[in-house]
Amino acid sequence: MTERAFQDFYPDDLAQCYGCGTLNEHGLQIKSYWDGDQTVCHYTPRPYHTAVPGYVYGGLLASLIDCHCTGTAAAAAARAEDRAIDSDPPLRFVTASLKIDYLKPTPLGVRLEIRANVTEIKGRKVVMTATLAVEGTVTVRGEVIAIRVPEDLLAE
Amino acid sequence: MTERAFQDFYPDDLAQCYGCGTLNEHGLQIKSYWDGDQTVCHYTPRPYHTAVPGYVYGGLLASLIDCHCTGTAAAAAARAEDRAIDSDPPLRFVTASLKIDYLKPTPLGVRLEIRANVTEIKGRKVVMTATLAVEGTVTVRGEVIAIRVPEDLLAE
Repeated sequence: MTERAFQDFYPDDLAQCYGCGTLNEHGLQIKSYWDGDQTVCHYTPRPYHTAVPGYVYGGLLASLIDCHCTGTAAAAAARAEDRAIDSDPPLRFVTASLKIDYLKPTPLGVRLEIRANVTEIKGRKVVMTATLAVEGTVTVRGEVIAIRVPEDLLAE
Repeated sequence: MTERAFQDFYPDDLAQCYGCGTLNEHGLQIKSYWDGDQTVCHYTPRPYHTAVPGYVYGGLLASLIDCHCTGTAAAAAARAEDRAIDSDPPLRFVTASLKIDYLKPTPLGVRLEIRANVTEIKGRKVVMTATLAVEGTVTVRGEVIAIRVPEDLLAE
């Protein structure tokens, strides 16, 4: 995929997020894209993202699903409003609720694929389900409710 | 508190976890303690653990609750079995399910207090509820189900 990721369209003052901000040099800098009606993100954990030896840290897996879904929410809201993701007012979402089920251990050292489906868009709320897979095997499932950030919070 | 934290009792080969391993130099190295029947952990996020400017990244908050609860599970299992947390066989837990509700934004730059209560211990499973608070105000609630790691996985 050569197109720009959702996160590449965030304005600079909203690009500091540890999970997805392109300007956070310490962060994960995940990139999310449309793939039909789903969204997809690939990420290869670093060697120190370990839990018990050989397996990926669960907090990282939760973070990947969380940030991929807030990006998905922004992209889905833009699609629903038939406008560009970087048009004004800014479409930036935060997580209200995050539910993660760890189905089996996720091995360290391979590329992970995170996919999200939007199940509901209503007002400022976007509801999504997500999977995280290793070479086609789903190891983690997630459910995320994201809420659009009020403009007055962004203006602070 | 001057006593050793739960995490300080993990054997070296189980002390690599990104969230709580004392030997993971890149990680969070959280420390959890008993406080009566609750457990408590304090952590001050780093400046780059940001979400939208001025607020803490939700993935970090989920990670703190996750790791504090797996440590709590080990300590609670030791108490339930009336043995030391570092006695054999090792008491090491992983997360099966993590549910996080973000009640309000968590400001960056102050110390966070994470507290957990054990609500059920049954077989290899420990169920906990958790809160994360800033200066007495709860900003995040969590529910965690942790499962004791089978010895054959630890031996790999």
